[in-house]
Order: sequence, then C-alpha cells, then structure tokens
Amino acid sequence: MSVWTDWFAERRAAREAAGLQRTLRPRAVDEDVIDLAGNDYLGLGGHPLARRAAADAALAWGPGAGASRLVTGTTTLHAELESELAEFTGHEAALVFSTGYQANLSAVGVLMDKHSLIVSDAHVHASLIDGARMCRAAIEVVGHNDLAAVRAALASAGGRRAIVLTESIFSVLGDAAPLPGLAAICAEHEALLLVDEAHGLGVAGEGGRGLVHAHGLARHPNVVMTATLSKSLGAMGGAVLGPAALIDHLVNRARPFIFDTGLAPAPTAGALSALRVLRAQPELPQRIHRRTKELAARLGAPTSAGAVLSVPMPSPQAAIAAQAAALAEGVRVGCFRPPSVPDKNSRLRITACAGIDERRWAHAVDVLTRVVYDHLRWS
Amino acid sequence: MSVWTDWFAERRAAREAAGLQRTLRPRAVDEDVIDLAGNDYLGLGGHPLARRAAADAALAWGPGAGASRLVTGTTTLHAELESELAEFTGHEAALVFSTGYQANLSAVGVLMDKHSLIVSDAHVHASLIDGARMCRAAIEVVGHNDLAAVRAALASAGGRRAIVLTESIFSVLGDAAPLPGLAAICAEHEALLLVDEAHGLGVAGEGGRGLVHAHGLARHPNVVMTATLSKSLGAMGGAVLGPAALIDHLVNRARPFIFDTGLAPAPTAGALSALRVLRAQPELPQRIHRRTKELAARLGAPTSAGAVLSVPMPSPQAAIAAQAAALAEGVRVGCFRPPSVPDKNSRLRITACAGIDERRWAHAVDVLTRVVYDHLRWS
Repeated sequence: MSVWTDWFAERRAAREAAGLQRTLRPRAVDEDVIDLAGNDYLGLGGHPLARRAAADAALAWGPGAGASRLVTGTTTLHAELESELAEFTGHEAALVFSTGYQANLSAVGVLMDKHSLIVSDAHVHASLIDGARMCRAAIEVVGHNDLAAVRAALASAGGRRAIVLTESIFSVLGDAAPLPGLAAICAEHEALLLVDEAHGLGVAGEGGRGLVHAHGLARHPNVVMTATLSKSLGAMGGAVLGPAALIDHLVNRARPFIFDTGLAPAPTAGALSALRVLRAQPELPQRIHRRTKELAARLGAPTSAGAVLSVPMPSPQAAIAAQAAALAEGVRVGCFRPPSVPDKNSRLRITACAGIDERRWAHAVDVLTRVVYDHLRWS
Repeated sequence: MSVWTDWFAERRAAREAAGLQRTLRPRAVDEDVIDLAGNDYLGLGGHPLARRAAADAALAWGPGAGASRLVTGTTTLHAELESELAEFTGHEAALVFSTGYQANLSAVGVLMDKHSLIVSDAHVHASLIDGARMCRAAIEVVGHNDLAAVRAALASAGGRRAIVLTESIFSVLGDAAPLPGLAAICAEHEALLLVDEAHGLGVAGEGGRGLVHAHGLARHPNVVMTATLSKSLGAMGGAVLGPAALIDHLVNRARPFIFDTGLAPAPTAGALSALRVLRAQPELPQRIHRRTKELAARLGAPTSAGAVLSVPMPSPQAAIAAQAAALAEGVRVGCFRPPSVPDKNSRLRITACAGIDERRWAHAVDVLTRVVYDHLRWS
C-alpha cells in the first residue's frame, strides 16, 4: 500500500500540526467520573427500568433484529415504539431507523431529487448535509436562523419541490430556530420544513415533547420532524415523524431504511422504556434548564436552549488542555473542534445532565469554573 | 400538506399498480415459523451465550453507547470486538460502525473525493453506491465480475486516486467475485480494492474467515474489507478492516462515524460473543453449504457461494404469492423485488440457515419444493 501509506501519513501529519488529530479512548464499565460529555441528557440510559427492558429484549429477541425492517426485522417492539413516539410528539406516525444519521439521510433523500431545491440553515447537522449531497438536489445554504434569506431562497424555487432544513435546538451554539416563522414561510411557498429535534426531544417543550410540539406545529401540513433515540432517550437509533403518507413513502423508498438491518431489540426496548419514564416524570427536563442556567452564569458563557453548554476556547489546544485538567479532577467534558463546529472556533462542550445527583453536580460546577478560567488565562 | 399529499398518493398508486408496494409486518416474539428469510446465517443470534452477553452488556452499560465513538461512545467492548475481528479475518486493525450501511459509506467517503475515480461492479450493495454518490468522485460502473472492464477503467484513471468496489459474495445471485484477479489489477494500477464481506464473513473461507482471508489477501497492500455484524454474527453494525493507518484515517475523517452515536453495548457484546462461538466451532459454516446445495438441487435453482439461495420467479406478484403460500405452511422466506435486484427479475430469497435443526429443515425443504413448483406453473 505504498502510495496509500504515504497518503495516510501525510494526512495524519497535517492533522497533528493543526492540533486536530483524534484517537479513540475506550472507557471501562466501572470508571468513576462525572460524565458531562455524553448525550444522555436525562440520565435515562442509566435508569434501572431502561436497562432491564433492554436486557430482557436481548434475551427474548436476540442481539439483532435479524434482517431489514422490510423482511423480518420489524418486531412488535419497533411498532410499539413508533406508536408511542408519534403520540408523545403529536404526529400522526413515526418510523424508527438504526441511527439518527440514517433517519436524516432518508428524510431528505426520499423527498428531494435532482430537480428539487434544498434550503439549508448554515448550522445543520452533518447528516442533513450528507443527505442533501446524496440526493443531488440544488442546495442553497442560508445564514443561521435567517428568515428573510429562507424566504428569498424559496421565492427562487420556480416550481421546484423544495424543503427547508433546520434543527429545533442547534448542537454547538445551543440556540433555538424560529420554527413558527419558518413554517409560515414554507406554507406560503408549498415547501416542507424538516426540523431535526435531536437536541429538542426530551429537553424542550411540555414534558420534553420538543419544540415542534411546543409551537403547535406537530400536525402542520408543511412540517416534518426527525429525532434521535440516542440522546435524551439514552439508547440508539433515530426516527422520522409526520403524516402516515410520508412514513409509507419512507418505508418504500428510503435506501438507508430498506438496505439496512433493523435497529437491535435492546436499544429499541431501552428507548421505549425511557420514553415511558419521561412520560411518568414530565418535570424531569426542567432540571436540565436549571443546570444550564446555573453553569452558564458561573462560567460567564452564553446559556443554552438545550442541554449542552458551549464554552468558547481560544484554540483547539486550549480546549484539549482544559478537558484534560477537568478529567484529572474527575469531571469529563467534551470538546467541539473542527470539523464539528460551524465556524473555526473550538469550544468545551458540557452536558447539563439531569441524571447526576445534586452533590456531584455541585462538585462538577466548582471544578469546571476553576478549570475554564485557568485555561482562558493560560492561552 | 396538499401538494405533498397528492405527491405521496401518486407515488403510492404507481407502486401498487406495479406490485411493488411494501408494508411493515411486525413479528411477535413467540411466533412459530421456520425463518428462512432473515440474515442470521449461522443462527448465532439465537445462541444462548450471545443473548446472555447482549443482556449483560445492556445491564452493565445501558441501552446506548451514550455519545459518538470519539467522545465517550467507545467502550472496552468496542475495543475487544475490533481487536478480535481483525485477528479473525487476518487484518491489522478494525473499526466498528453503528451499521454496515455507514461502514460502507465511510470507507468509500474517506478514500475518495471529487478528484478520484470509483470503479464499481454493477451488482454492489446500495450502501456502496450511496457512498460513491456522496463523495462526488467520478463513477464508472463495470459489468458484473468483469476483470477486463475493471482493468480498462483503471487504465483510464490518469493519475487520479482510484478504488474498485466489489463484494466477496453477492447478495442476490449468490456468486463470488474473482478477488485474486481484482487485487492483482488494483496493485498494477496503485488502486485500492474494497471488498464487502457482508455475505462472506462467517460463511466462506476457513472457519468462516471470509474470502479475503481464503485468498490470502487480508494484508495485501491494496485490499480493504468491510463487513456487517448483523448477518452471520446475528447482531447489528458494521466494520471496516485493513491497515491501522486506514483505521486512524477513518476515525478522523469518516462523517458517518464522527457524527453518530456509537453502536449500542448489547449488539456489540452479542457480536463479540457470536464471533467467539464461531471460533470455537469452525465447522459451523459447512452446514450452510450442505443446505444450499441440497435445496438448490430440489428446486432446480442455481446454487450459491453464500447462505442465500435465489429462486427466479416470473413476476413480483408470483414471488409474493409463493411467499404467502410458504408462510401458510409455517415457512418464512423473503423476496427480492425491484429496487433490490440488479436486473428487473423478482426472486424468492431463501436463507439456508445453519441454526435450524435437521427435522425442521427437512420439513422446510419439502414445503418450499411444493410451493415453488406450484407458483412457477401458476404464473
């Protein structure tokens, strides 16, 4: 692999020079850290009911779904989860995918083709961007949360089928999209609005029903929603939610759905159990918002509409150093570094997880306050 | 959604007219059928050790990995599985993905860009085709297993980075690729050969090590392999296998790896357990080959290098009717219909699963022989 060996080595050297080389660090099951790096926003992945449900599903059904959802990979677990997800968020129907990434690829891919127009907020997730690239539609990237730009882009659609891509709460900046305005503009232009609720489900809106529900848009004729099962529901997988006719269309046309094995029984059952815990404890998401507000105030950082607080750092190296210093004191946080940021700015990524008890949370806040100020000075 | 409602309705009507409308049919945990439709080729998804390992992982780690593999989504389970998969298949290193679909998207996507050339066998899986589309490389589709066409396509690369896409055993026709010839041609042209062993791992080669291993190509400098964990290993997920430098490159550059939650602990542990069962019972794959040969002879169908037997049917409707007739007698088989076939021809898809006991297998063979001949006459 001589030519290829050189090619890999050159690329690695360039990443190392830029402070962007990444390595996998396996974690042990018994490590004693306060985890503020993960996406288990409500701590439901640690809930005994969710763990038991996942384990029972693995024993009853096996480690895998066995085939594509269209063959024998749909179990009654999948059907129950789809029905309860749709009811919870107010949509007519839902379809569960193996990953959130594939849910987004699919939603974009079955609605758009090379004759269509995609209007994408500049900050949407990689999976939506990749979906847009894959379907070969014309893509117009508009400024972040810029309603006028969306309106202008749709006005130029000229009869093409058009879709607007946004998130309810954006991952990196933690800000919310102007969903009612976007939905109104889409209705005017007979376009669809695709809202990714990866960071909204379980976090925002009444009892964690998300921002599409909070704005009364769940059955809006121009709104489609996607979500992940791997964040506030603590499991794995994704979903598309909307009219039953859209779900039928996805089942028949979505290549990442048809040509893939169904979501495994354990995460399916885990997500279903977590959803039921959330419905029984509708006050749970409030804890996230109290914590983001508290931590943001302590760090002098902008607060977040979601569960993730972004703390700007002067360089990728400073972000890495601060992360290491926090870990040395038993607190794990994440980093946003290129290519995971919409701009070039690296940040600490801190999840205000509702699943951590008050004593450990208070300790984490103290550690992070010290570490962040140290590393802002240091750089 | 008036414009969109009409659009969905028109598309559904067209599918129904063509006999191609699909619906999900949830299966119950206690249904009593002989399942020859799934991809659990060795029956290891039903093995008590694999189920116990998956359940224990769900209890110990939770229903999900909690974050991207690059953040906290890599557990010691993932690392163990990667190490044992690489050792088993003879590669230097392995990387586990949430799905086989995303493993293939990633392998193509990190090696190719818009200045590159992809030479693709006409029968490769949808995930490789989608990966090729997404990276915007030039794509040349060549005839199925046509070495001369591959050579000619690579000769026209003119200094571009080039890759050849194939599978070790093809899903629909069940035939094997001429891997030694392809590897030699790639070496001549400094191209990479990407071999998808979705249907080879656990099925072909010594003890189920796959055809890349069988041909001594596992450390060939121009060969990269992908695989799924959802077929012979009975779980969920995919893997890319090759030099450590490739794996490092994937970890840093593969968008479907970076922007996705890690594979859930239960299927990770299930795949690891299944792999260990397979290593302890290297004769297990032989049972598949005895069964495909026996069934092919009874049905007058071409045999298969893999675990799936394809039985050509005169129409999609005839395939569906035969499938229903078999199910009425307690035997579930699948159908290949457009868009899941390389040609327009519908087929019955029958898995010669090694996990079914001899008595039930003999019964299934009798049922299928009767049903297939009935429906060939009928149409």
